[in-house]
Amino acid sequence: MKIIDGGVTAAQGFEAAGVEAAIKYQNRKDMSLIYSRVPCKAAGVFTSNVVKAAPVLWDKEIVAHSPYAQAVVVNAGIANACTGKEGYACCARTAKKAAAVLTVPEDSVLVASTGVIGWQLPLEKIEAGIEKLAAAKADTPEAGLAAVEAMMTTDTKPKQAAVQIEIGGKTVTIGACCKGSGMIHPNMCTMLGFIATDIAISKELLQEALSEDVKDTFNMISVDGDTSTNDTLVILANGLAGNAEVTEKGRDYEAFREALHYIDTTLAKKMAGDGEGATALFETKVTGAATKEEAKSLAKSVVCSSLTKAMIYGHDANVGRIMCALGYAGVDFDPEQVDIFCEGDGNRMQICRNGMLTDYNEDEATKILAAPEVSVIVDMHRGEAEAAAWGCDLTYDYVKINADYRS
Amino acid sequence: MKIIDGGVTAAQGFEAAGVEAAIKYQNRKDMSLIYSRVPCKAAGVFTSNVVKAAPVLWDKEIVAHSPYAQAVVVNAGIANACTGKEGYACCARTAKKAAAVLTVPEDSVLVASTGVIGWQLPLEKIEAGIEKLAAAKADTPEAGLAAVEAMMTTDTKPKQAAVQIEIGGKTVTIGACCKGSGMIHPNMCTMLGFIATDIAISKELLQEALSEDVKDTFNMISVDGDTSTNDTLVILANGLAGNAEVTEKGRDYEAFREALHYIDTTLAKKMAGDGEGATALFETKVTGAATKEEAKSLAKSVVCSSLTKAMIYGHDANVGRIMCALGYAGVDFDPEQVDIFCEGDGNRMQICRNGMLTDYNEDEATKILAAPEVSVIVDMHRGEAEAAAWGCDLTYDYVKINADYRS
Repeated sequence: MKIIDGGVTAAQGFEAAGVEAAIKYQNRKDMSLIYSRVPCKAAGVFTSNVVKAAPVLWDKEIVAHSPYAQAVVVNAGIANACTGKEGYACCARTAKKAAAVLTVPEDSVLVASTGVIGWQLPLEKIEAGIEKLAAAKADTPEAGLAAVEAMMTTDTKPKQAAVQIEIGGKTVTIGACCKGSGMIHPNMCTMLGFIATDIAISKELLQEALSEDVKDTFNMISVDGDTSTNDTLVILANGLAGNAEVTEKGRDYEAFREALHYIDTTLAKKMAGDGEGATALFETKVTGAATKEEAKSLAKSVVCSSLTKAMIYGHDANVGRIMCALGYAGVDFDPEQVDIFCEGDGNRMQICRNGMLTDYNEDEATKILAAPEVSVIVDMHRGEAEAAAWGCDLTYDYVKINADYRS
Repeated sequence: MKIIDGGVTAAQGFEAAGVEAAIKYQNRKDMSLIYSRVPCKAAGVFTSNVVKAAPVLWDKEIVAHSPYAQAVVVNAGIANACTGKEGYACCARTAKKAAAVLTVPEDSVLVASTGVIGWQLPLEKIEAGIEKLAAAKADTPEAGLAAVEAMMTTDTKPKQAAVQIEIGGKTVTIGACCKGSGMIHPNMCTMLGFIATDIAISKELLQEALSEDVKDTFNMISVDGDTSTNDTLVILANGLAGNAEVTEKGRDYEAFREALHYIDTTLAKKMAGDGEGATALFETKVTGAATKEEAKSLAKSVVCSSLTKAMIYGHDANVGRIMCALGYAGVDFDPEQVDIFCEGDGNRMQICRNGMLTDYNEDEATKILAAPEVSVIVDMHRGEAEAAAWGCDLTYDYVKINADYRS
């Protein structure tokens, strides 16, 4: 596997664009297009929230029932959630306009929105934006970057990743981008994520690879515990790599899975580290758990705790809060077996042994926790299973951003 | 039922004290005593966290196996959690010292601690504190207030409540106090709560009344989603009211339950409203739910959401965040049936109808949400069940308090 530069336009046959459409934000790009020159197999995973945004309902239909997908139209600023029939009709109109401009079928157009919930989208601006997108689309890295920049809300950095692998002597590329900063929590995030690959693969295996991989990647991150109404992760595979179609599990499938896992992990960590107001990526690794599920529950509990998150912001190695968060994770363990380490900038220190504080040096611990990427490693001494979860610190800026997001 | 002034010394035969013992804090009261002149039936509910502080383990034993209880010794500053055998031994030594000074059996002494996790208690200071407490104890309102002040950590206000009811022609009094500000979440809180009553009642009914009532009161509040290692709520009943002992359910038991419910609700709301950094009490009432459990899950989900909490701080009626939090509560409902109202300072406004925003006036909504006690009322239109949950807003000060709590 070779890590390469670029994002959603890295794979063959994919084009992208990002333009200003003044949906809500002014003087910045706020609409994106991802487009494949040829039809794609599509797979997707969507929010588990009962309150699903209109674009989520639309895309679920397309992924389940359309013969193929060929374009994604994204807007930032308004989420098109809690918008009823009018909101769903807006998705249909968006797809219709894009279909006309791109000369593709209406049911090959996916849509995605992020932003304020409850407001209707201004359809005329969306339609004007689609015309600009179609005119601007290109297969360059710059076009991929413009697309991801245009979908940012409170994100501070565009998030992209790309890799190449060999399958049957052919070079297969996977490029991807995502946005997400608030309302981020396991079970998908507002989080919009788009993966574009030129692999030839059956639709069933494409969906299975995606569904399995999100469990250990995007579903293991949390910024604030709020599962959004709009979470969407879509993968498009257009087959232009020319490999013999992957139709069963085996070496080729595993190579693809490994590459996809790298892409998903990279983007998930970028998303966690760029959580609203965050100053640090906060990773928790649980080892020595009895089962994988148990390891995941424990790791998630620690990264989701407001108190551990505030402690990371304060660079304060507060073992009690970590023990406390482990203790309410729903796992029945013996506290006196637990060892805890913290790690940052390549330095590692044991801060808890057998459930009690070690006599670690506070100044050293503070230095470790001041790193931009901080890990808490918990050894449960119960078995062999392990898992990781990712979050970020809780800061003044998180409160500031969310006390009045709409104004 | 008559609401009266006072707290834990309101009922006959109860004395209290609060003194300076310099456990961790300097120049403030940090140890409390609650004492009954005669033996008491005792009942308690304790944290569900797997990591239980030593005093929790001690008190569970006393409540389960001692014939009676007569005193509670409390300290603030150090939680005596994650302290192993040494921590448990400290509870035993505390009880031993209190027993000697108060001439009561060792196994009638309950202990409770709140503060930093992981540190050992300074036993000599604890013992010196107990001598001061015994000398200072009195049955006055001032002594009750001193006791609750001495158990405060990041609390900004002492929390007390007291009521009187008639049972069999006798006046029965219930007085209570509690502390709690951070690590507060359903399933008990650090939260320490003490209820002192002169009712004569069987131990079984005392425990049942307490266990049932916390489900709708203390277990329905959340400050930050973190269930503490130290949560303790204890009720002592010394029988001095002189009523015929309540030994079965009926009118007398119901009168006591109603009074206890008032006490628990009052203290729970005071605790939520005084959450770390809070500027407002944030109540969510869910009506029209299919079942009570469903109503509770929905109400809790809304008060626990970081995004709704930040929205209350910003006085911003963000319907989308409320809908979003309802949507991930684990209840499978139709979003298009949901109505939402907000209420504050006696004003009420509908902000959502059939799952979509009403055209409410933003300025009016902001005014309502600026009240010191704000309610969000959700009508699910699915049935007759209802529930309330209480929390507080998420503020800069919450982050400030928790970024470096120990220094």
